[in-house]
Amino acid sequence: MSDSFKGPLASRRQFLAGAATAGVGALAAGSAKAAGDPLITEVQEWASGLGDGVDATPYGMPIRFETDAVRRNVPWLTADPISSINFTPIHALDGTITPQGCAFERHHSGAIELRKQDYRLMINGLVDAPLVFTYEDLERFPRENHVYFCECAANTGMEWAGAQLNGAQFTHGMIHNMEYTGVPLRTLLQEAGLDAAGDLKDKWVYVEGADASSNGRSIPMEKALDDVLVAFKANGEALRKEHGYPVRLVVPGWEGNMWVKWLRRVEVTDKPVESREETSKYTDTLADGTSRKWTWVMDAKSIVTSPSPQAPIKHGTGPLVITGLAWSGRGAIKRVDVTLDGGKNWQEARLAAPGESMALTRFYLDIDWDGSEMLLQSRAIDETGYIQPTKEQLREVRGENSIYHNNCIQTWWVKPNGEAENVEIS
Amino acid sequence: MSDSFKGPLASRRQFLAGAATAGVGALAAGSAKAAGDPLITEVQEWASGLGDGVDATPYGMPIRFETDAVRRNVPWLTADPISSINFTPIHALDGTITPQGCAFERHHSGAIELRKQDYRLMINGLVDAPLVFTYEDLERFPRENHVYFCECAANTGMEWAGAQLNGAQFTHGMIHNMEYTGVPLRTLLQEAGLDAAGDLKDKWVYVEGADASSNGRSIPMEKALDDVLVAFKANGEALRKEHGYPVRLVVPGWEGNMWVKWLRRVEVTDKPVESREETSKYTDTLADGTSRKWTWVMDAKSIVTSPSPQAPIKHGTGPLVITGLAWSGRGAIKRVDVTLDGGKNWQEARLAAPGESMALTRFYLDIDWDGSEMLLQSRAIDETGYIQPTKEQLREVRGENSIYHNNCIQTWWVKPNGEAENVEIS
Repeated sequence: MSDSFKGPLASRRQFLAGAATAGVGALAAGSAKAAGDPLITEVQEWASGLGDGVDATPYGMPIRFETDAVRRNVPWLTADPISSINFTPIHALDGTITPQGCAFERHHSGAIELRKQDYRLMINGLVDAPLVFTYEDLERFPRENHVYFCECAANTGMEWAGAQLNGAQFTHGMIHNMEYTGVPLRTLLQEAGLDAAGDLKDKWVYVEGADASSNGRSIPMEKALDDVLVAFKANGEALRKEHGYPVRLVVPGWEGNMWVKWLRRVEVTDKPVESREETSKYTDTLADGTSRKWTWVMDAKSIVTSPSPQAPIKHGTGPLVITGLAWSGRGAIKRVDVTLDGGKNWQEARLAAPGESMALTRFYLDIDWDGSEMLLQSRAIDETGYIQPTKEQLREVRGENSIYHNNCIQTWWVKPNGEAENVEIS
Repeated sequence: MSDSFKGPLASRRQFLAGAATAGVGALAAGSAKAAGDPLITEVQEWASGLGDGVDATPYGMPIRFETDAVRRNVPWLTADPISSINFTPIHALDGTITPQGCAFERHHSGAIELRKQDYRLMINGLVDAPLVFTYEDLERFPRENHVYFCECAANTGMEWAGAQLNGAQFTHGMIHNMEYTGVPLRTLLQEAGLDAAGDLKDKWVYVEGADASSNGRSIPMEKALDDVLVAFKANGEALRKEHGYPVRLVVPGWEGNMWVKWLRRVEVTDKPVESREETSKYTDTLADGTSRKWTWVMDAKSIVTSPSPQAPIKHGTGPLVITGLAWSGRGAIKRVDVTLDGGKNWQEARLAAPGESMALTRFYLDIDWDGSEMLLQSRAIDETGYIQPTKEQLREVRGENSIYHNNCIQTWWVKPNGEAENVEIS
């Protein structure tokens, strides 16, 4: 039981479906040998007695070794009196679901604590009968379940000024993806009655939260009646405080700022309110100096999460799993391409599952890394045929003075030692 | 802004698609009125200042009010020196994903703490080249993502002796449903080479964990080469300690006991080992006094999670959302029926999404409750056409001396006051 333990990846090639690279080498450094490895030959402490009983954690937390999969902020990013943005540790996650505990937060006046019994939701404005719902009322309407991504409009915003934040968590981590349970906003609006609103085509709803900022946003009636959810659960359980407990709005495919947390009021209006949050903020400056009035939909985008600056290659040459996330606010992801050489050659990545509409899609490219440097990029294509643009293409339209809605292709420079850096190539 | 606030569910009927009940009443008690409700008319404390900044919780926990959605045990259920079973709070959850933090645990010698750097996985027995993998090695193989349910064979086991545990959490809570990321076991077996095993049709793998119990189980080679995963992530992040960190086996559709945690060894054998865990335990006694040798697949099953003993109706008569979960180890759920009268009349429930193979399916039935008592049951039908049996039908085959694999229809007696009780009807 000693020399016979070896680690050749003899049959590795057959599992590399989708990878265009030929000639997969041996799994060199990492593979353990039984001979002389006490972790194999000796009885270990954890196999010698009892572990924890089930009373240890009625509600469990990650094991203490997993200190990397936490939200992080960048204090200098906002001028707010309290830190108001943090980032999902996408470099350390796999799959598509984001646990609430490490899903990014963005608050406009901090995360408030609001009890269910104190919760009220008012529907007013151009409705037949204004209504106020308690939390318990909401639980009595027919519910739906959907998995959707939520991306902050400012995600990747620092990239307009060139490569600045060194990690997928910081460049692309203002995104999460959860299974929401809630009542369609349509149901509540129809409950209040929309006859008074007349022709719905030019009507709007103005939504606001119960926090001090109120974070009011205008949403066209067409979207409000389509797929917007008044949600009270995420990934099966109650929304966390920082995600809007007890009730938040879910606006599929649209910028996260519209997903109002601690939702307290929906007013039917005959025009957009043009609030602070949709004029001075979340508006796109264009190359010609003008500003674009509305940009709601988050266009197709993708990012390689590993390897990346926070997730370097530690195992040397040989088999390497390249993985990342892709999404589109306009529907399902159809294809993701990956390049190792800064865009000269592209390979089609393997999608872990067929893309779902307005939800994260996980992709993989399994390669044999020869240890040479890579300029790693991914490029998403959605069901509308839209192709994720380069930074150059985006700047042609938007200039360099933008903050929001940056969905450009991201480049990681992976060095021969396995470390990666955020770089800009042209 | 006072008298105009009323809460009739005027247009409620059109949202009750799928409900056979006619005549939906007004949303009577719950609806709030604006007049005199300071929660609407006065500026509240939480709208007057700053809430928590994002530094408050790098990894967040549920808000402190949500004390009900926790795992609970029933100390007298097992004779183990440490509590070894707890239950998912399915009565308090919605959707389908189970957060790791409240997903049930079953340990045979407690939850052990095993660091990634101390992790080893041995593949030995009838293979061409026995191998030992480190955790880092596993990360280099092509990965898959799948959502699967994991149900303990003993789930609902106390129901053989009649209605005893008063709550969906306790009768049906030894189940969870997560998105797993891992490497197919097939990949690792083929890496070690299976030529030495000869004809694979009659071969087995014996899998064991690194804890003191080792919890060894035999799995037919056909299943091992099919869809079994060597998983290291659940719902995007690392497995929690209590779920087998850093690596567990995922055996889709099969009893949870085979999903070996802290997986340390996979041995290819020419016959089942017939270990303690697959002979003295997890074996079904039949009505004729004999025992059935293997019962691996978890047959189709469902449960109404709300209303239920731990989730009574608090809002009185009128619109009521009945909801629950259904699943099958043989494939996807095709249909769920619900009865309000103990099986005399059945209505087809609405599935929140089309059933996915070997994963939880959420169902809803939206009714207008007149306040009379109900004998509430649900009945799952899977893609094979199998129909979840009554307790009586099951006892005809299995007698009353069984412990495991009870997938009978469950009855909740809902009283006019909205409280519910676990009862047995015949």
